[in-house]
Amino acid sequence: MIRSDRILKKYENLQDILLDKNLAKLGDSYVNLIYSLALSEKLQRPTGVNVDNQTLATAIKKSGLRKVLPKRVDRHEQANAAEALIAYAWLNKFLGFERCLKNFRENERSDEAFAKILKYVCKRMKLEKCME
Amino acid sequence: MIRSDRILKKYENLQDILLDKNLAKLGDSYVNLIYSLALSEKLQRPTGVNVDNQTLATAIKKSGLRKVLPKRVDRHEQANAAEALIAYAWLNKFLGFERCLKNFRENERSDEAFAKILKYVCKRMKLEKCME
Repeated sequence: MIRSDRILKKYENLQDILLDKNLAKLGDSYVNLIYSLALSEKLQRPTGVNVDNQTLATAIKKSGLRKVLPKRVDRHEQANAAEALIAYAWLNKFLGFERCLKNFRENERSDEAFAKILKYVCKRMKLEKCME
Repeated sequence: MIRSDRILKKYENLQDILLDKNLAKLGDSYVNLIYSLALSEKLQRPTGVNVDNQTLATAIKKSGLRKVLPKRVDRHEQANAAEALIAYAWLNKFLGFERCLKNFRENERSDEAFAKILKYVCKRMKLEKCME
C-alpha cells in the first residue's frame, strides 16, 4: 500500500494543497501517466506524452478552481495547482486510474477531461465550500 | 478498467516486446511515476523525478535480460527495453504499484530495485526460458 501518511504533510486548506510545489512534482508524473494511458487507448497503440501547462491551466479555469488561487499566478503555477490537487486526491484514494480514464473516454478535449477530474475530486472531497 | 487489449499488439516473443519503442514511451511514464512515488516515501515528502537511462540499462544487465537484446543496442535502447517490459507487465496485470514499491523499500539502489522488478516480471510471466 502507498504510505500516503508518510508522504503528505498536513494542509491548512484547499489553497495550501494547490500551492504545494512538491505535491505538483509528484502530480506531474501521475498526470503524464494517466494522459499517456488515455491517449494510448484512443490511438490504439501505446504512447507517452507530457501534458502541457496550457491544458492544465485551462482545466483549472473550467473547474472553477481559479478563484481559489491568488490573483497573480501564471499559467505554470495554475498547471501546478491542477497537478497538486490530483496527486493529493490520488494519494488519499479519492481518485484512481478508472475514474480518470472514464473522463478521457467521455471527453474529446483533454482540458475538458482534466476539468471534469478536478470537479469530481472537489465533489468527492467535499471541497465545494472552499470554492465559493 | 484499462483496455489493454486495445493498446497492446500481438508480440512474437520477448525480444519483440523489449524492442517496442511505443511501449517504451508508455513505460517511461509508468517508470517515472513509480520511482517518484518510491522516492517520495523515502524523502517523506512528495517529489517527481525522471529515471535516467543509466539506471535502467544497469537494471537490464543485472536482471539477465541483456542477452535477449541484439548485441549492438546502446544504453538508451537498453533503458527503453526495461520500460517496455514493465509497461507490458503492468498492462497485462502482472505488475502493480504494490510490488514496485516493495522492491524500492527493500533495495537502497534504484538500479537494483528495477532489476528485481524485471526479474519478478520474467518469473511471473514465465519468461525465464526466453532468457536462456
